[in-house]
Amino acid sequence: MAAEKMLPQIFKFVDQNVESYKALLKEAVAIPSVSCDPKYRKECIRMAHWMQNKLKEVGASTELRDVGFQTIDGNEIQLPPVVVGSLGNDPKKNTICVYGHLDVQPALKSDGWESEPFELVERDNKLYGRGATDDKGPVLGWLHAINAYKGIGEELPVNLKFIFECMEESGSEGLDELLMEKLKPEGFFDTVDYVCISDNYWLGTTKPCITYGLRGISYYFLEVECAKMDLHSGVYGGTVHEAMSDLIYLMNTLVDKDGKILITDIYKSVAPLLESEKKLYNSIDFDPEAYRKSIEAHKLPHNGVKEELLMHRWRFPSLSLHGIEGAAFQPGAKTVIPGKVIGKFSIRIVPNQEPEEVEKLVFDYIHKKWAERGSPNKMRITAQSGRAWTENPDHPHYQAAARATRLIYQTEPDMSREGGSIPVTITLQEASGRNVLLLPMGAGDDMAHSQNEKLNVRNYIEGIKLFAAYLYEVGKLPK
Amino acid sequence: MAAEKMLPQIFKFVDQNVESYKALLKEAVAIPSVSCDPKYRKECIRMAHWMQNKLKEVGASTELRDVGFQTIDGNEIQLPPVVVGSLGNDPKKNTICVYGHLDVQPALKSDGWESEPFELVERDNKLYGRGATDDKGPVLGWLHAINAYKGIGEELPVNLKFIFECMEESGSEGLDELLMEKLKPEGFFDTVDYVCISDNYWLGTTKPCITYGLRGISYYFLEVECAKMDLHSGVYGGTVHEAMSDLIYLMNTLVDKDGKILITDIYKSVAPLLESEKKLYNSIDFDPEAYRKSIEAHKLPHNGVKEELLMHRWRFPSLSLHGIEGAAFQPGAKTVIPGKVIGKFSIRIVPNQEPEEVEKLVFDYIHKKWAERGSPNKMRITAQSGRAWTENPDHPHYQAAARATRLIYQTEPDMSREGGSIPVTITLQEASGRNVLLLPMGAGDDMAHSQNEKLNVRNYIEGIKLFAAYLYEVGKLPK
Ligand SMILES: [Zn+2]
Ligand SMILES: [Zn+2]
Ligand SMILES: [Zn+2]
Ligand SMILES: [Zn+2]
Repeated sequence: MAAEKMLPQIFKFVDQNVESYKALLKEAVAIPSVSCDPKYRKECIRMAHWMQNKLKEVGASTELRDVGFQTIDGNEIQLPPVVVGSLGNDPKKNTICVYGHLDVQPALKSDGWESEPFELVERDNKLYGRGATDDKGPVLGWLHAINAYKGIGEELPVNLKFIFECMEESGSEGLDELLMEKLKPEGFFDTVDYVCISDNYWLGTTKPCITYGLRGISYYFLEVECAKMDLHSGVYGGTVHEAMSDLIYLMNTLVDKDGKILITDIYKSVAPLLESEKKLYNSIDFDPEAYRKSIEAHKLPHNGVKEELLMHRWRFPSLSLHGIEGAAFQPGAKTVIPGKVIGKFSIRIVPNQEPEEVEKLVFDYIHKKWAERGSPNKMRITAQSGRAWTENPDHPHYQAAARATRLIYQTEPDMSREGGSIPVTITLQEASGRNVLLLPMGAGDDMAHSQNEKLNVRNYIEGIKLFAAYLYEVGKLPK
Repeated sequence: MAAEKMLPQIFKFVDQNVESYKALLKEAVAIPSVSCDPKYRKECIRMAHWMQNKLKEVGASTELRDVGFQTIDGNEIQLPPVVVGSLGNDPKKNTICVYGHLDVQPALKSDGWESEPFELVERDNKLYGRGATDDKGPVLGWLHAINAYKGIGEELPVNLKFIFECMEESGSEGLDELLMEKLKPEGFFDTVDYVCISDNYWLGTTKPCITYGLRGISYYFLEVECAKMDLHSGVYGGTVHEAMSDLIYLMNTLVDKDGKILITDIYKSVAPLLESEKKLYNSIDFDPEAYRKSIEAHKLPHNGVKEELLMHRWRFPSLSLHGIEGAAFQPGAKTVIPGKVIGKFSIRIVPNQEPEEVEKLVFDYIHKKWAERGSPNKMRITAQSGRAWTENPDHPHYQAAARATRLIYQTEPDMSREGGSIPVTITLQEASGRNVLLLPMGAGDDMAHSQNEKLNVRNYIEGIKLFAAYLYEVGKLPK
């Protein structure tokens, strides 16, 4: 069937099946697959089995790949298996490898959710629930797109390969080894032509985008110890060098009030801003005032200038102070002097910053500040890091995705970058040696990782159509 | 019976009943009466009933006084009743009012306890368990002392009044009103001659002390808000004025690395150190090196000089940074930008600092530092405070307690002050208009509020004898 006939039929089919798409997402959200908490590990494993069955139902051949154990607090705990699959092996067709994740961030109604986080609820044409947009909705989108081809009796225009994991929110433990040391040697990637990941968001709330760059992350654990146990501040206060005051001092040396990172030489290897790149920002659809209002901030940094804000989200590093482990965190008036505290902060790193180089700058800086402090306490700093990623947005793969997006949304998508980090992007680039593309489904106000995470019904349904059109467009690319 | 005969008989009786004293403490520790956590409120109420029954068993008349509700997160929750009792009303005898508490700090084995915190376990002649020394052991000590008089067939040398509460670790909610607006008008204190509280510790581990002073506390909640919800640091990092960096900045202005408080004029109203007071510190038995080792600190402040350390524990204010509510506190690499954070710190205040004056100095200082910061975020600071307390250690009541202590421990007790705060001390002083004395049972390394809280078997058993001897000595004071 020609495109002019086939895609409209698919879109019609999708519009007729909206309720079943919502029902399946509700089923997926109801599994509390929180990967950072061992209490929910069973649910992550259940989630993998659930997904394997859904892939089987659309005719894919699948397997659950065991990736071993992780160690938490000295205990070995089983990692959830990775769902690996393939659908079609026509040598005349292009092959797309699709990645997504089915684990989620923790969520409790008492955190400030308006409804139960693990019960998908529709309000105002928005589907609220933990994982709705990150990343269960997009993963199911692929299933629905495949099904839509089946629904109208058409064969898929491409071969597909699937990698769906349940540990993404917790560092994708075991995945890199599986990709590089198992799947690659086994030839899994030999037939792959393109890689597509749907695990990010539009920049704003109305205009679609395709994403060609991500910041990396360098995460730090800054530990100070003053005593072997917590102490009563009435009994000991005034007679110990408190670990908290040392830690607060160190954390206060990292960033100024405007978000400028104070670590010596940290900006040195940041890729210079070219005139050509600078121009790219002008045309991008981004409303600083709407952005400010959506988070109810009083005032944005960088004078609220659009281009500056975008650049500081995408192409400049940023440093965030996340919190302190070991200190009082409960409501109320706890009077403890913590014996050991671990400050957490991270730097979003960008081209051309290399993790090893950034870590060294941070370590040197902290050690220098610590020496200046002259405290008798013990200090230790460790890090875990992942590199930044960029791809060429002029690649035919990007052009195909742009055509699909125009067809669905009747507008030119922004070619965007993102502030966040999806380390698997780089691994998939390396494992496949192919062009990797990020095709977001959700909107910029979906509040992934936050309270009241949601996916607009529109983004879900048009996203399914977008995925179907993308498969079609990539199918037309020369083999 | 004459003292020379009666007290030795009592001591013998006590030595014969050691196992039953341990068994009763085990029973009390097994009730997890954690007052700060509404989940355990039922246990606090159970604890009050348990205590009432024990008092009835020694012949006291008792009642459970309802003190109403407290509001937590907008919910009204029942406060545990206060156990009020009396034993004896012989107008020829002196009357002692005894106060203690039966609620405890939270404790989990996973916090680093060697055994279950709510299961009293004896290791190396120490009784480990939450509440063993703070304050269940001392409260039971009074019961056992009364019982010992009964056991040898002697009548009590004094009348007793009891006030035992189950909210001490959570600000003694409702107690002040009960004491000042109910018990005092009802005449409860009319016959009281002396007040005794056993809820503190020896200075070290070998020499007993009697305590005539406590620091007060001024506790602060320092709130900074940058957004209405938590934000993903990848998506938002670089484009918000983060609340955490503002809070860390403010917390870093409070105290220097040597513990000197930086708040303007904070030391101005501290009572001057008189030559006579200075001398008191020389004779006190306190080993800085043993103190340092017990907490495994690398080095103590004030060059580890004994007199300096004692003065900074007892008679100078100290400031501790306790933690941050609303920020990441879990193990692992949480990448959130907290939307609202509440820093917690407190100042232990001393004569002649008044809470209102200290609060004003802190508020003014924080507002000044906040203005210097120039952040667009919202900042708010609130406080809750209690006054410092001192009593005259030359009072006959103190001399009586000193005689009792010499009899048990064959040494002159130190007249000590304490760094901690027991706000009810002042209320009881005001409600009764009588001399108040703190008679500690536990040792300085008992680790109240910390992991592996314990009470030495020796301190428990000799403490029971001490209480019995104290009742005898007060009984001899002129009416
Ligand atoms: Zn995701
Ligand atoms: Zn995520
Ligand atoms: Zn206590
Ligand atoms: Zn306590």
